[in-house]
Amino acid sequence: MSKSKIRAEIIEKLKKLGEQLEKEIQKNKDPEITMPIRTLSNAYFDDKDKLIRLGDKKQTRNFFNVGQARKFMQTTLIAAQIKELLEQNKPSISTRQLYYILKRTIAGLKENTFENQNESDPIIEDVEVSIDALREELGLEPTPKGVFSGLITYKDLRTGDEINCRKMGTAGAAIPANVEPSVMEFKKSEAKFVLVVEKFAVWNVLNQMKFWDKHKCILLTGKGQGERSARRLVSRLNKELKLPVYVFCDFDPYGYYIYSVYKQGSINLAFFSEKSGCPDAKYIGLKHDDVKEFKIPKSNFIRLTEQDLKRLKEIKNYEWFKKKEWQDEIQKAIDFGYKIESDALVSKTIEFMGETYLPKVIKDKDWLD
Amino acid sequence: MSKSKIRAEIIEKLKKLGEQLEKEIQKNKDPEITMPIRTLSNAYFDDKDKLIRLGDKKQTRNFFNVGQARKFMQTTLIAAQIKELLEQNKPSISTRQLYYILKRTIAGLKENTFENQNESDPIIEDVEVSIDALREELGLEPTPKGVFSGLITYKDLRTGDEINCRKMGTAGAAIPANVEPSVMEFKKSEAKFVLVVEKFAVWNVLNQMKFWDKHKCILLTGKGQGERSARRLVSRLNKELKLPVYVFCDFDPYGYYIYSVYKQGSINLAFFSEKSGCPDAKYIGLKHDDVKEFKIPKSNFIRLTEQDLKRLKEIKNYEWFKKKEWQDEIQKAIDFGYKIESDALVSKTIEFMGETYLPKVIKDKDWLD
Repeated sequence: MSKSKIRAEIIEKLKKLGEQLEKEIQKNKDPEITMPIRTLSNAYFDDKDKLIRLGDKKQTRNFFNVGQARKFMQTTLIAAQIKELLEQNKPSISTRQLYYILKRTIAGLKENTFENQNESDPIIEDVEVSIDALREELGLEPTPKGVFSGLITYKDLRTGDEINCRKMGTAGAAIPANVEPSVMEFKKSEAKFVLVVEKFAVWNVLNQMKFWDKHKCILLTGKGQGERSARRLVSRLNKELKLPVYVFCDFDPYGYYIYSVYKQGSINLAFFSEKSGCPDAKYIGLKHDDVKEFKIPKSNFIRLTEQDLKRLKEIKNYEWFKKKEWQDEIQKAIDFGYKIESDALVSKTIEFMGETYLPKVIKDKDWLD
Repeated sequence: MSKSKIRAEIIEKLKKLGEQLEKEIQKNKDPEITMPIRTLSNAYFDDKDKLIRLGDKKQTRNFFNVGQARKFMQTTLIAAQIKELLEQNKPSISTRQLYYILKRTIAGLKENTFENQNESDPIIEDVEVSIDALREELGLEPTPKGVFSGLITYKDLRTGDEINCRKMGTAGAAIPANVEPSVMEFKKSEAKFVLVVEKFAVWNVLNQMKFWDKHKCILLTGKGQGERSARRLVSRLNKELKLPVYVFCDFDPYGYYIYSVYKQGSINLAFFSEKSGCPDAKYIGLKHDDVKEFKIPKSNFIRLTEQDLKRLKEIKNYEWFKKKEWQDEIQKAIDFGYKIESDALVSKTIEFMGETYLPKVIKDKDWLD
């Protein structure tokens, strides 16, 4: 859907919300906003769709309720401001900038509309779930951090530029802050899969080797934990271009978790997870059994800290890691007592990762699901 | 100079270092490496060139010295490994990856070549200063984080791609990990200046407004403190294209400091500072006097913390802030008692920053030097 159509749709939803409140006021009723609850208790792992989802518990927010009046006021302020910015087709801003626009002392009172961003951020999420739209569609954009390269061209629908990721040099293409279909249109791609790597240094070596050209893929790094736009971009490539997604991380609890966030999202952003998940993503490494199979030298082992062990045990209890293959993997990692960074594979040869390890694990489907 | 020429030159320097050590051994002398001292005591602010520089104090590192033998061994290991990678024209790697390549248990001993990266990183810097080359030229690349857009095209000399920063969409071009002239060649630019902004959110609004098109400039953000490649890129644009550099930061001690690092570098990377500084960069805001002049609303003020005050007083004592205009500015900031983020300017209007504030301060040369 085009940006202007999406925009019109969202403005309509926000208008309806306002009209409903207006009617209630005219009928001398207590104005009330109903929205899905976003607390952890209403987030769950949907075992069928393999995604973290928001449940169907609802909450109401009333004006004539001393405990809710402030939040009610803040919700209407944010919804009205977003509507205004969309109507005027303003540039997208950050959630912090929205906070600055709305922060002021209320006329006649000593109270501020918002004291700090911790007050406005959750309300923005409330508005997102209330009208079933992502904040990017509301004109709010986060700071992106990843880069990607390979067999994909996209058109930036706001500027009209076509970005050919085969021609982005050693830098790669910057992942845009907003990767929604209304502003980013994929062109035909001959890619056969998406390779997501945790570390920039790993991406940098593979990109210099033109791994994506030889293996016909799209090569992406979120530079550590993938933030919103990296996750959403991977999800779109997976769903719209039907590309398998392979995730290559460190062999440690953080690597496992980074993979799981690309795959099924996270509990505390459950609403976003439904839209940014990639349920068929595969974890291609590093895995415990790679240590023996690829003779990873002992000098690359790093002893697990207490914190690592604690995290491994926590992860083992997550519902989305309950499959036998993952339970075995995590137990083996605990018993092994060491972690290994994906960077370390260069100690075999710099090309080992791109010429031997990755082609082999992908060809052999030697992955965890 | 082309990459292959730079490479040949560096290989030659490393070879000479090895040959010198070999000669000393053959003459039964104690092998010795001489290099500039990199401690803070040998870094200074060059008031004439307005740059932080490394002084001319030297140190020697000897093999037959119990206190230096380990570091001597590590220095030769790193120098030899870098030479080998350059000779084989391998992809650039990270300093962590170099550590992994070199870490091993020494044959016949229980000792490792390196225990952790804290041991290898300083030695890499030693090798850099010893042969007067940046680590990027040695095939070691950091993780970049900034983006830029505007009136510049560059050629990536490793891939042959031409990146036209006027056509990079809302994402902008990713700043490459390595921006040395041997791998990144600027094409002709009609830009009149470089605008460096601290915050991505500020860059994002200005880029969507095509500020760079209207005001004929290059628009860059380092996303907070500029890392190596952002600083080096700004410095090259300044020196090679003779473009004035304007830096736009938060009105707080961190904003002042971010500007100063673009301008004259930092003490703890003094060797890099000489090559990445931008002595004529101007600080265009936010400044204390903007508060009144542009009627920045009080709701945008954030009270200075103890930490902020301490930092302001520290900065006031830095030699490169000793000019009267800076002493006055910092004192006014202390007396004012508040800080203001550059993001906050959207609270006037979203376009205020790009249409009013920045054009005015640049036109009026309302900056600090």
